[in-house]
Amino acid sequence: MKLFNYFRSSASFRVRIALELKGLPYEYAAVHLVKGEHKKDEYAAVSPTGLVPTLVTDSGEALEQSMAIIEWLDETKPQPPLLPRDPLGRAKVRALSQLIACEIHPLNNLRVLKYLVRELKVEEEAKNDWYRHWVRTGLEAYERELARLPESKFSYGDTPTMADCCLVPQIFNGRRVNTPEDGLPRTMAVFNACMEHPAFQKAQPSSCPDFEK
Amino acid sequence: MKLFNYFRSSASFRVRIALELKGLPYEYAAVHLVKGEHKKDEYAAVSPTGLVPTLVTDSGEALEQSMAIIEWLDETKPQPPLLPRDPLGRAKVRALSQLIACEIHPLNNLRVLKYLVRELKVEEEAKNDWYRHWVRTGLEAYERELARLPESKFSYGDTPTMADCCLVPQIFNGRRVNTPEDGLPRTMAVFNACMEHPAFQKAQPSSCPDFEK
Repeated sequence: MKLFNYFRSSASFRVRIALELKGLPYEYAAVHLVKGEHKKDEYAAVSPTGLVPTLVTDSGEALEQSMAIIEWLDETKPQPPLLPRDPLGRAKVRALSQLIACEIHPLNNLRVLKYLVRELKVEEEAKNDWYRHWVRTGLEAYERELARLPESKFSYGDTPTMADCCLVPQIFNGRRVNTPEDGLPRTMAVFNACMEHPAFQKAQPSSCPDFEK
Repeated sequence: MKLFNYFRSSASFRVRIALELKGLPYEYAAVHLVKGEHKKDEYAAVSPTGLVPTLVTDSGEALEQSMAIIEWLDETKPQPPLLPRDPLGRAKVRALSQLIACEIHPLNNLRVLKYLVRELKVEEEAKNDWYRHWVRTGLEAYERELARLPESKFSYGDTPTMADCCLVPQIFNGRRVNTPEDGLPRTMAVFNACMEHPAFQKAQPSSCPDFEK
């Protein structure tokens, strides 16, 4: 398998975590978003959306959208599972994942921040306020969701799930703009448990071959 | 089942389509977003996120996030299926769904538009440009994705899937700001096929009990 991705892309980071959790080797293909490599013809041949990540399977299929890729990995390489077996548990894990992937991250990705600055002439500090606002609002909702669930080591149960694959990169992103982390005890305990796990360590931006300070 | 939702919410609309496609009766609980009913204590008891939709199951579980709800419906009431059986087909349908639900819709929902106006002092026309920009950019990507797939009546194959549940409400939303629909032949053909289907007609905003012009 070959993963087209970027060290700082949090959607890419989600898939890297899933691959590491499942112990699956993959070829790392760096797409430098800041240099605009995702907009070039070479990458357009891989991804019609021009977004990262794309996972090219061993049979040559190009899979897009991080949660869809993680579900495909879970269906085709089931061990260890990243979703519970029961439909209710699966719904809860998917909802936690989507609370990050649909409610927080889309507002803070690079193309959106660029639009704020270039088209809407938003100043640096207001841009960072926007970023922090959506991360903090989303993480507070995540905390309230966790509060409805039984105590557990990870977001849902005592082994990592797709929800943790989504949460950890979002916390990394939030830190880039100094998002406050107080008042989120369950969420931050889960984050800390994840970061003690070798799969999350291996997948983090600073472990990537294209990492830049 | 009881669906907490709002006629104009496109995430609500997705779930209504899925319920109609499966022929499942449900109680319609209106949450008036413009009047702020989603922020009141009554709804907070149902949804910790304060977002719509929430589906309360017959056993009293509150399920959130539209794609998670649709997948739960598909796992617990499998006929007719809203996702293909094979992992690759499932990955494609999920990716199309997420192209709408993660890349377009989050940028245009009510709370985001309010932030643009109230905090960033964005004028009406620039707000509408923002809205159209993300809808159009996303639909162009959707069209390129469809172009990689075999010709079919709906987004993926000749029966409706979760992707169509996501696409149709997004087209409705785009029309509110006069998003151009030229150059999207496959996408618009799918939309038109959907709108001839009774399930999509019954689920549309103008068929809802809380509809307002």
